[in-house]
Amino acid sequence: MCELLGMSANVPTDICFSFKGLRERGGNTGPHKDGWGIAFYQGKGVSTFKDAAASHHSRVAELITDYPIKSNVVVAHVRQANRGRVALENTHPFTRELWGRYWTYAHNGQLSDYKQLPCGQFQPVGTTDSERAFCFILSALAEKYPQGPKSRPQLFAFVKKLCDGLRQQGVFNLLLSDGDYLFCYCSTKLHHITRRAPFGLARLSDVDVDIDFTRETTERDVVTIVATMPLTCNEAWQAMTTGEAILWKAGEMVRRF
Amino acid sequence: MCELLGMSANVPTDICFSFKGLRERGGNTGPHKDGWGIAFYQGKGVSTFKDAAASHHSRVAELITDYPIKSNVVVAHVRQANRGRVALENTHPFTRELWGRYWTYAHNGQLSDYKQLPCGQFQPVGTTDSERAFCFILSALAEKYPQGPKSRPQLFAFVKKLCDGLRQQGVFNLLLSDGDYLFCYCSTKLHHITRRAPFGLARLSDVDVDIDFTRETTERDVVTIVATMPLTCNEAWQAMTTGEAILWKAGEMVRRF
Repeated sequence: MCELLGMSANVPTDICFSFKGLRERGGNTGPHKDGWGIAFYQGKGVSTFKDAAASHHSRVAELITDYPIKSNVVVAHVRQANRGRVALENTHPFTRELWGRYWTYAHNGQLSDYKQLPCGQFQPVGTTDSERAFCFILSALAEKYPQGPKSRPQLFAFVKKLCDGLRQQGVFNLLLSDGDYLFCYCSTKLHHITRRAPFGLARLSDVDVDIDFTRETTERDVVTIVATMPLTCNEAWQAMTTGEAILWKAGEMVRRF
Repeated sequence: MCELLGMSANVPTDICFSFKGLRERGGNTGPHKDGWGIAFYQGKGVSTFKDAAASHHSRVAELITDYPIKSNVVVAHVRQANRGRVALENTHPFTRELWGRYWTYAHNGQLSDYKQLPCGQFQPVGTTDSERAFCFILSALAEKYPQGPKSRPQLFAFVKKLCDGLRQQGVFNLLLSDGDYLFCYCSTKLHHITRRAPFGLARLSDVDVDIDFTRETTERDVVTIVATMPLTCNEAWQAMTTGEAILWKAGEMVRRF
């Protein structure tokens, strides 16, 4: 299994604090030592850092915890391999272009019979069930909306249906973004928290680190964090339920499916 | 205009030394301050670091010069914007999947009438002539080889023809890789050097740094570097001529077109 981390914010925000917690689970407080990756959107562009080594020991992961890369949408993942060997091509998140947008995806779970999933023009590069399911979702979207969707919330409602189907083949917790929206789907485990004024102090669960968000934010900031398991020990994270999906934009919940 | 840097090697090799020279041209010894990026292949996987800020001032670029990421193929770029604003989505290199491989591309030059180039299923995300030309090349490849090519050198011979056409629309110096091969095309300026035993001392042109490759390598290592302008001042770089293309694999020249 793996752990997911996503962010949706209404102002460019760094994810150093949350990533610091996630990184510990990549080979220290957690067993997810088989690679890690993080994608930062800035406008329509996306920059992805990934490494097939454990995040806990990674110099690049160290940089991400220290160096504030400002972004409105982040998708991150630490991996414990099940399907597909430990290799860079099997490391999440995965990014592909569709309708002139970059789509970024990370998966936590395990699917059976995934090799039968049709992928159309989106061929997997690696050998994971995860990447195959991503290609399946994109090819289903390309087929349903050959000219692109008129409404993106409607498109994500369709993605939710696809996830309901995939969940029949195993465990399928998902983060998916086009740079504007962050879509998350819960099969077994996914939690979220939205931070807004009045901000307070947060304390990481995995390492002895506090942050005082009042010093880091303005009154208008809205920042939502989605993670497999809560990353802080003194805040009220919301647990999602099986089959539930939430669509976020600019830190706010746009739709709950 | 921009500057290109590519590497092809027969053993996983870091590019710290060469990137140190290139980075200086991103806002210090050169005017290419409008973003930079570098893609490292490891097997079929690729990890790309990019930033719309000047490489000379970038913390991420600093990491790349200090931290040896071992790779067999590297494609890097520092940008001086002409077509397309300074933004992450306009920052090279660009990567797309075709036939279950990641293709990575960087361009130096400027094209006119590029908006008419057909792109098929590969839609540009940003607004550069460069990304449009990349989408054009991939869509032409997808059309010519619907099931994938039987011979990749033959495929690159076809890419060379496409480049000959694009060069009629302006300046088109190119690096393109699928993770195994590194293809380079010269429209105006491109240089290469192959380092093999007996290795010697190399000195960067842009900053006062030496390296003694005898200490960094084994006798069997073969490493080719391709760059817009020579990066060292004491070695014999080969200048490519207009319309010339070279295909490299594992550091060796496979074919000259």
